[in-house]
Amino acid sequence: MVNKNDSFRFPVRVYIEDTDIGGIVFYANYLKYFERARTEYIRSLGFELRSDFESGVSYVVHSLDARYHKPAKLDEKLNVTASIRKLGRSYIDFYQRVERFSGELLVEGNVKVVCVSTLKGGQPCPLPDGLTAVLKINSQ
Amino acid sequence: MVNKNDSFRFPVRVYIEDTDIGGIVFYANYLKYFERARTEYIRSLGFELRSDFESGVSYVVHSLDARYHKPAKLDEKLNVTASIRKLGRSYIDFYQRVERFSGELLVEGNVKVVCVSTLKGGQPCPLPDGLTAVLKINSQ
Amino acid sequence: MVNKNDSFRFPVRVYIEDTDIGGIVFYANYLKYFERARTEYIRSLGFELRSDFESGVSYVVHSLDARYHKPAKLDEKLNVTASIRKLGRSYIDFYQRVERFSGELLVEGNVKVVCVSTLKGGQPCPLPDGLTAVLKINSQ
Amino acid sequence: MVNKNDSFRFPVRVYIEDTDIGGIVFYANYLKYFERARTEYIRSLGFELRSDFESGVSYVVHSLDARYHKPAKLDEKLNVTASIRKLGRSYIDFYQRVERFSGELLVEGNVKVVCVSTLKGGQPCPLPDGLTAVLKINSQ
Repeated sequence: MVNKNDSFRFPVRVYIEDTDIGGIVFYANYLKYFERARTEYIRSLGFELRSDFESGVSYVVHSLDARYHKPAKLDEKLNVTASIRKLGRSYIDFYQRVERFSGELLVEGNVKVVCVSTLKGGQPCPLPDGLTAVLKINSQ
Repeated sequence: MVNKNDSFRFPVRVYIEDTDIGGIVFYANYLKYFERARTEYIRSLGFELRSDFESGVSYVVHSLDARYHKPAKLDEKLNVTASIRKLGRSYIDFYQRVERFSGELLVEGNVKVVCVSTLKGGQPCPLPDGLTAVLKINSQ
Repeated sequence: MVNKNDSFRFPVRVYIEDTDIGGIVFYANYLKYFERARTEYIRSLGFELRSDFESGVSYVVHSLDARYHKPAKLDEKLNVTASIRKLGRSYIDFYQRVERFSGELLVEGNVKVVCVSTLKGGQPCPLPDGLTAVLKINSQ
Repeated sequence: MVNKNDSFRFPVRVYIEDTDIGGIVFYANYLKYFERARTEYIRSLGFELRSDFESGVSYVVHSLDARYHKPAKLDEKLNVTASIRKLGRSYIDFYQRVERFSGELLVEGNVKVVCVSTLKGGQPCPLPDGLTAVLKINSQ
């Protein structure tokens, strides 16, 4: 289980590019926030997407779900969290939240990301050893 | 239940704006395709989002899930479907697919959209009568 | 010189994803429309971006300018045009417009696109011969 | 004239959402970076877009130009600058750059933003007095 207090937190500001005619963040754009937080979480552990791309490893989203509780608005500063719900040999199952700085929950969801080999036509492959090791420590 | 053959179909082309460094459509962008197909489905029934906005009615996404089976690639022409899984007094639960023209399934998901009053601070409100009537006929 | 009546026309619909809190199309998103029209223009001449990518040729924007005369709004159906202002050995200089179906001009601009070799670290390279030949005929 | 050393600087990280199949930032997305830096510049002076929207004032882009010198890549951390080239009664003419942290120039451009009244159908209106005063001090 995820202890919410232990999850990685990444601040995001809402810009005009994120809003739509309703004056709130467009629903697909929260997935951009989710992706930024996952990337920064992985980066905080010492791993970078670009170097993985260059070594033939890519990460693709397998499935996700999201619940939109309250809308985020222009100029708001938000926290986006990422924590590991389940760690497989070739996948990471993230639980993520978009919160106000007050802690108020706006959007939450789960995103399952699979490690694939770009050299082998996108077949699932084991996560890099070093990443698995550090994620195991981090998600305990 | 949804009869897949009866669902609304909307063609979408993949442009560079939709792709990412992985050479495939970025995972959040399928939600744009979903939204286009929902809008065109509603439009095909005689209703337009803009006129609703002007009369104080807006539609917000309540929750969704998505499964990514295969990636869509640059220049591909896809069909995006929308059909009604469940119709409530103030919400529509859509089932949606992104398919190749061959019928091959790439992405599928459910999106629950709630009708809200922009005049009453975003409180849920009943769907416009005319829309409910025509959706009932259409989803039988 | 470009004869406006001779330019390639591509229809585009404005969706929620394109709008911002101002209720109009976000200024960067007209560049997406421009890119779609350029791509469709090139495609109409028998050339596809993906096959070029696969053969080590890519197109990058060198420079552009744009004037925003009137905003496009949700649900509007627009025409996006593309015509060739100047054709170089390794570049194409496009003149582009976003118009209402009535012909009313909303946005116009020039975009200079350079052909580069992805194998040679992004160095400019001559446009594919076949493309140059067909563009010359088309822009006369 | 703009003294480059005096311009406002805002750091931006490149995420997957910003890239395209070419592995670099999609050309329209630099305009998002530009807008973020303009917004943060104005915010650093004590003004917020949302409060202006609420008081019937909006800012629309009138025209722009951009030159793309070198591409930005995934995971790169960039500085985006904003400085005032010319200040009119109802418009601000910005000069903006996207740079590597080393100072290397990637993209530069000019963006002319006009203040409009949302209550008067989008007619140009004078910039808020307080904003003009502080911009004058800041751009000297």
